[in-house]
Amino acid sequence: MMGQHRRKANGAVRIGLLGCGTIGGGVARHLLMQRHVLSRHVGCPLQLVRVAEIDLARARREGVPEELLTTDARAVVRDPEIDIVVELIGGTGVARQLVMEAMRHGKHIVTANKALLAKSGLRLHAVAQRHGVDLFYEASVGGGIPIIKSLREGFVANKIHSVYGIVNGTCNYILTRMAADRLEFDVALKEAMAQGYAEADPSLDIEGHDARHKIGILASIAFGQWIPQEAIHVEGIMRVTALDIQCAHELGYVIKFLAIAKAEEGGLHARVHPTLLPAHTMLANVNGVYNAIEVNGTPIGTTLFYGRGAGRDATTSAVIADIVDVARNVRLASHERLPTFTFTTRPRPLKPMSEVWSKYYLRCTTVDRPGVIAAISRELGSRNIGLTSVLLHETARGAYSTILFMTHRAREADVQAALRAINRLPVVKAKTVLLRVEPSEE
Amino acid sequence: MMGQHRRKANGAVRIGLLGCGTIGGGVARHLLMQRHVLSRHVGCPLQLVRVAEIDLARARREGVPEELLTTDARAVVRDPEIDIVVELIGGTGVARQLVMEAMRHGKHIVTANKALLAKSGLRLHAVAQRHGVDLFYEASVGGGIPIIKSLREGFVANKIHSVYGIVNGTCNYILTRMAADRLEFDVALKEAMAQGYAEADPSLDIEGHDARHKIGILASIAFGQWIPQEAIHVEGIMRVTALDIQCAHELGYVIKFLAIAKAEEGGLHARVHPTLLPAHTMLANVNGVYNAIEVNGTPIGTTLFYGRGAGRDATTSAVIADIVDVARNVRLASHERLPTFTFTTRPRPLKPMSEVWSKYYLRCTTVDRPGVIAAISRELGSRNIGLTSVLLHETARGAYSTILFMTHRAREADVQAALRAINRLPVVKAKTVLLRVEPSEE
Repeated sequence: MMGQHRRKANGAVRIGLLGCGTIGGGVARHLLMQRHVLSRHVGCPLQLVRVAEIDLARARREGVPEELLTTDARAVVRDPEIDIVVELIGGTGVARQLVMEAMRHGKHIVTANKALLAKSGLRLHAVAQRHGVDLFYEASVGGGIPIIKSLREGFVANKIHSVYGIVNGTCNYILTRMAADRLEFDVALKEAMAQGYAEADPSLDIEGHDARHKIGILASIAFGQWIPQEAIHVEGIMRVTALDIQCAHELGYVIKFLAIAKAEEGGLHARVHPTLLPAHTMLANVNGVYNAIEVNGTPIGTTLFYGRGAGRDATTSAVIADIVDVARNVRLASHERLPTFTFTTRPRPLKPMSEVWSKYYLRCTTVDRPGVIAAISRELGSRNIGLTSVLLHETARGAYSTILFMTHRAREADVQAALRAINRLPVVKAKTVLLRVEPSEE
Repeated sequence: MMGQHRRKANGAVRIGLLGCGTIGGGVARHLLMQRHVLSRHVGCPLQLVRVAEIDLARARREGVPEELLTTDARAVVRDPEIDIVVELIGGTGVARQLVMEAMRHGKHIVTANKALLAKSGLRLHAVAQRHGVDLFYEASVGGGIPIIKSLREGFVANKIHSVYGIVNGTCNYILTRMAADRLEFDVALKEAMAQGYAEADPSLDIEGHDARHKIGILASIAFGQWIPQEAIHVEGIMRVTALDIQCAHELGYVIKFLAIAKAEEGGLHARVHPTLLPAHTMLANVNGVYNAIEVNGTPIGTTLFYGRGAGRDATTSAVIADIVDVARNVRLASHERLPTFTFTTRPRPLKPMSEVWSKYYLRCTTVDRPGVIAAISRELGSRNIGLTSVLLHETARGAYSTILFMTHRAREADVQAALRAINRLPVVKAKTVLLRVEPSEE
């Protein structure tokens, strides 16, 4: 901790903003227009003093006064007048360098940068701790939903068992549209792009990398140890079909793109994949671009947080809340009021996906002949995979049958081995679809 | 602010607990068993030093060491060693006196006492401010759901438009059971009592007083001005029938016991009553003893918080979170880090119920004769109450018909006048049932 930065604010708390794009513009505008209200919340004046943005015209359109503008972000992170640096550039290149340098200069950090936190969270927290500065990132997950504050503060008395998140609005919109109008994935994706709910390059969303960033951050806070991105198993939503959504529906389930983190005997794991959820559950009823995060803990039980997961407005709400929180700490010299995220004295091992236990849905395409169900069941049963139901689905695909299998809790490695064996059976005529089912506790 | 209390904790933060019943026992047990973890969260030792309880045997059963026990609550609130007084006695008599006296002695307060806050919140906050102490009460609403922290901190950037809460688990359990098995109210109430979900005297819950306390607290924080209990219109769930639940279902609605607070043009209002909600909404899918609170604001949009609303475990989670929050402030001498709840410079007027606008459901029992619908519609139309649908319900009640009317947004006073006129019509054979419908914005 650098003592010289541990001062109470004399007069005002001063903010330097890096990036004045969609989110940064919203934050700048809010800080400028609501400064009197925000100052009352903080307990002293809250001033936006510098805005660094390459595209000055863009910043001007947000109403940022000329004297605040600069193209030199480096100067902002070094400015001795500035207490809090708000990083809204995004990405893990220049943003990372600037955040690191700002902390070394004793600046507190507020950021919405999920990729940065997910990939460099451990290092960033170490640097923050060394320099005695606050590092807040509520906006990185769940838009305006105060999920990180709830995990760090509201649930401080709890041991968290699991976190389930619908954390990618683009994917939830696509799956919602597929279910509502029986659309195929490609059609729904095109519609999402036309509506502005998907990027021109949607791969970060639909392949699950964005959700991986977010569940990495949530799991790290929930479990008190940083979860590396490489340890998180990811499957995107590109292979979800209208047929599987319909089959799931007939079984009483909805398919959602879920980010999951669990603490179980034997260790922790996190994963992201399309998942069948019972249709009556709260998570199954989260539709459109909305996000929701379910947290299960002791003593609290089951809780759920729901709201818009992205967009300028929701994100601005979270960034401003962080700024006010940190500004209060600056005013009262109470930095590091919240301890750095981790104080697990005994980090738990991370389970590889092959050792994860889940329930499963299998959709097999087979010849229409006696003995087929027996043949497939045998491959499952011989690997200790019990069945809860088998349904001969009415879909006719030429001469082929569609058979749905729902399993009891089983080990991923066993299920994958069974899947390979099933696909080798002569009666099986197309690649079997495998989806996981939650909740998978029995 | 009394300067002598504005000290950093030297060594430990010391807690005195008032009341060691169901909730107090859970809190005492958690503080004793998890003291090392909690101390790491606070940043210094967190010690339970006194437990005041009339029934010492009860406190002993919770594992409270003999040397902490006392029957003298007065001595605890005056003890110069104690930093935080945790009030879990309940009620508005002795609890109020003790909390007031504790604050006058410079103690910070954590309480779960919703009746106390709802009735004396304004005065309590004034005393807290005068003595420079923190007053936290997360557990008073929504059990372990961090809704008060979210409103005070997470949504600091927002202007809140409305709060909708399912805040009474007993009533939600009763309505859920009525809907699931077509039970009448009395039967479901008896079942709730047998299950331990309703008190021996359930009037505080089913008449809506508990929900009134809670929406009063939420509305006060959301709108920044204290809402007196007398200004909140309350109707209980005793008159909800299986027939109305069925009729609502056929119209695509669910009946929930809702606590509502809105900021509209012309002022604020709060009310508690059974309400029709579209079946597909998140709130409509909150079942059993669970609570949920929906908050609508700008820029955040719609958010929802869900979890167990009562019980020892969930409440303990919230009380401990408050204790840790306040203890951090004691450690860092950052009391009053959050400003006293209100800084509305221009309090808004409170609307009487007669001036509230809503949508309505009317169930009329009439003779089966041409012209009946016209006669009733005339009473509505002449008072500017437009209809969105009229449904002749199949229920046969002897020779009588059941007719359902759903209205556009209308003024409560006009609807009540129409209701009186309708009930005077010779063709109307039983008291017409009136229920409100949300969301009522058009």
